[in-house]
Amino acid sequence: MGKGRVEAFSDGVMAVAITLLAFNLHAGVRSKVALATQIREQWPSFAAYVLSFCIIGVIWLNHHYLFQLTNRIDRRLMLVNLLLLLFVVTIPYVTATYADYALDTGADARTAVLLYGAVMEGMAISRFLIPLHILRAGLNHVPIPPGQARKLLWRYGFAPLIFPVTTALALLTSAPMMLVFHALVVAYYLGPGMRPIMSDPEEK
Amino acid sequence: MGKGRVEAFSDGVMAVAITLLAFNLHAGVRSKVALATQIREQWPSFAAYVLSFCIIGVIWLNHHYLFQLTNRIDRRLMLVNLLLLLFVVTIPYVTATYADYALDTGADARTAVLLYGAVMEGMAISRFLIPLHILRAGLNHVPIPPGQARKLLWRYGFAPLIFPVTTALALLTSAPMMLVFHALVVAYYLGPGMRPIMSDPEEK
Amino acid sequence: MGKGRVEAFSDGVMAVAITLLAFNLHAGVRSKVALATQIREQWPSFAAYVLSFCIIGVIWLNHHYLFQLTNRIDRRLMLVNLLLLLFVVTIPYVTATYADYALDTGADARTAVLLYGAVMEGMAISRFLIPLHILRAGLNHVPIPPGQARKLLWRYGFAPLIFPVTTALALLTSAPMMLVFHALVVAYYLGPGMRPIMSDPEEK
Amino acid sequence: MGKGRVEAFSDGVMAVAITLLAFNLHAGVRSKVALATQIREQWPSFAAYVLSFCIIGVIWLNHHYLFQLTNRIDRRLMLVNLLLLLFVVTIPYVTATYADYALDTGADARTAVLLYGAVMEGMAISRFLIPLHILRAGLNHVPIPPGQARKLLWRYGFAPLIFPVTTALALLTSAPMMLVFHALVVAYYLGPGMRPIMSDPEEK
Repeated sequence: MGKGRVEAFSDGVMAVAITLLAFNLHAGVRSKVALATQIREQWPSFAAYVLSFCIIGVIWLNHHYLFQLTNRIDRRLMLVNLLLLLFVVTIPYVTATYADYALDTGADARTAVLLYGAVMEGMAISRFLIPLHILRAGLNHVPIPPGQARKLLWRYGFAPLIFPVTTALALLTSAPMMLVFHALVVAYYLGPGMRPIMSDPEEK
Repeated sequence: MGKGRVEAFSDGVMAVAITLLAFNLHAGVRSKVALATQIREQWPSFAAYVLSFCIIGVIWLNHHYLFQLTNRIDRRLMLVNLLLLLFVVTIPYVTATYADYALDTGADARTAVLLYGAVMEGMAISRFLIPLHILRAGLNHVPIPPGQARKLLWRYGFAPLIFPVTTALALLTSAPMMLVFHALVVAYYLGPGMRPIMSDPEEK
Repeated sequence: MGKGRVEAFSDGVMAVAITLLAFNLHAGVRSKVALATQIREQWPSFAAYVLSFCIIGVIWLNHHYLFQLTNRIDRRLMLVNLLLLLFVVTIPYVTATYADYALDTGADARTAVLLYGAVMEGMAISRFLIPLHILRAGLNHVPIPPGQARKLLWRYGFAPLIFPVTTALALLTSAPMMLVFHALVVAYYLGPGMRPIMSDPEEK
Repeated sequence: MGKGRVEAFSDGVMAVAITLLAFNLHAGVRSKVALATQIREQWPSFAAYVLSFCIIGVIWLNHHYLFQLTNRIDRRLMLVNLLLLLFVVTIPYVTATYADYALDTGADARTAVLLYGAVMEGMAISRFLIPLHILRAGLNHVPIPPGQARKLLWRYGFAPLIFPVTTALALLTSAPMMLVFHALVVAYYLGPGMRPIMSDPEEK
């Protein structure tokens, strides 16, 4: 099946999801509270917006990188890709829910952290299935030596292992701390986790 | 007419529609009900989200497959494609309506099931018109033997025959059962209905 | 300037605008009115959705056709294209406003008809400027004989002349009649107005 | 890394953001105020819509222009591009906030102007980083003489210098005047600021 349309459709879904994140930002015009105060009090919305923007940005960067490894897309890769998008599309929802309840002190803040963590986990697992399937089904168009294949699987297998940890840490500390823990994961994927594992096949 | 832009526009519409599905998910922040309870009680929204995501995903997969059969797009195919998109765009609306009324016990739940079924039927008929027109007008760029043409028409002609049945079964049983009946149709299209009927023309 | 990205951006904007049209459709779940009654009473929303979907569909078809005439895009064509998109983006808004007030009997229904008509006129004028500028600046990549150039200008110059008429007729009769008058314009552009004026340059 | 998908994703994000601008336009159907009066009183929404549409339009035109200078995209350019999109996505939010408070006479109008100005500044700085990085890392695929490089940097370095000025002027005069001051910046980028600095590499 053609790779171009799979990428175009995925790009479209991720572009819409990343843009809808800003829908959670809004000022209540009829509120009697000063606008400056409203904005200050909504800081979890702004922080969660930046975090989720970076997360979808990272997913897109990774998607871009992983689909460069192959130019042959089979049915299973198509399904795994749809599964990834199923989770990506819910990110604006869990971001909004998190922002609404992050300053809550009771059980609701923990529920919101769990919900966000569950979607991250689902996303991370389905993202991991992409390189796993490419390697297993031999869909890569340049040979990938075993050492580099292992590196590749570790890079994307790391996320499903770390998100339960960051989520648990946020549950043990506080909901706003989730932003810090998840930001560290993002920092990894925007820094060392963005380095090419093998020489870029399209660069040749 | 150029095939690239027709695919790009259709991909764009389907990507936006599939992403807007998650707009039906939301937690009422000022509600006094615990967030965990709200999420549990909103299970039809989550289930309907997954069903409709899969349905739009299947439509996109089918669209991808059917447009690979041709590289010549005439005016009628353009119109049939717009008709398909007209129904696709309403899927977030009927999904939201279904989710809002699925747990209702009266006539409203049945109305919501009927509304969802009507859009599925309109979508299925217009999707069927795509291979029908490609074959009748000879727009296919590789010859399709009669046996395979018949298979192709049956695969997409099956949906407009089955949606009235699944809708009627849901009306006879209960609104939540609609999810099960429609999920079976989705399972067919993600499983056996995804197998290539002829050797993929773009693979050659 | 590259034509590909201009088309991709325009396709994206039109795809989002056409999908957002369905946002005007919604059922008030807390309403005490039966869902079936709500849907019946909202018929102007459904009718306006279909009309505006067809109008954006036609704009996309025309855009596709007009940009096939050229493969050289200068700054002015870029600006004219942005002007067209400025009006396209407001179509969901004027559609929602029209649907909300169409059954009103007072001045508000007429205001809504005028608003819809004003956006149609702005869209039609900027769409007309596209072939006008292509011909004047000689951006066409195959020669267009004077007779065909005149035909081309008439086809797209017809809309800015007819929308004031359909709008005036709706003001003289009733707001719901606007749907009928505008549907006739759509019928022209989906029928005879879709026929190629010259042999399609990309077909060669 | 492939340039095509970076452009496609950026086009998608900008297309969604520009279309969501019109979401700020709405008429309160249950309001007792005449629709014509509502529309007149909402003039800041319409004016802000046109301004922000032009601003996103300009960003897209500049993006298009700047990415034509290179066909090699490194990690840092990818990150700078995501930073630009992070600000672009918030434009519908600051536009809505500005429109809601522009006619206010107190501190809220000034807060809204500051918020709009802050997003413009963030956008302008990240946009400036694109040519800066292309030149520093030598990603340009045709040589750019020093004189033209200086011109290029001035064109995009001008915006981060001018937005604090236009914002300060609006704070000193009145919130509605912000539309005029920012419109002058837009006029520069749609006029002289659109002229090619060097012969277009794709034209050759």
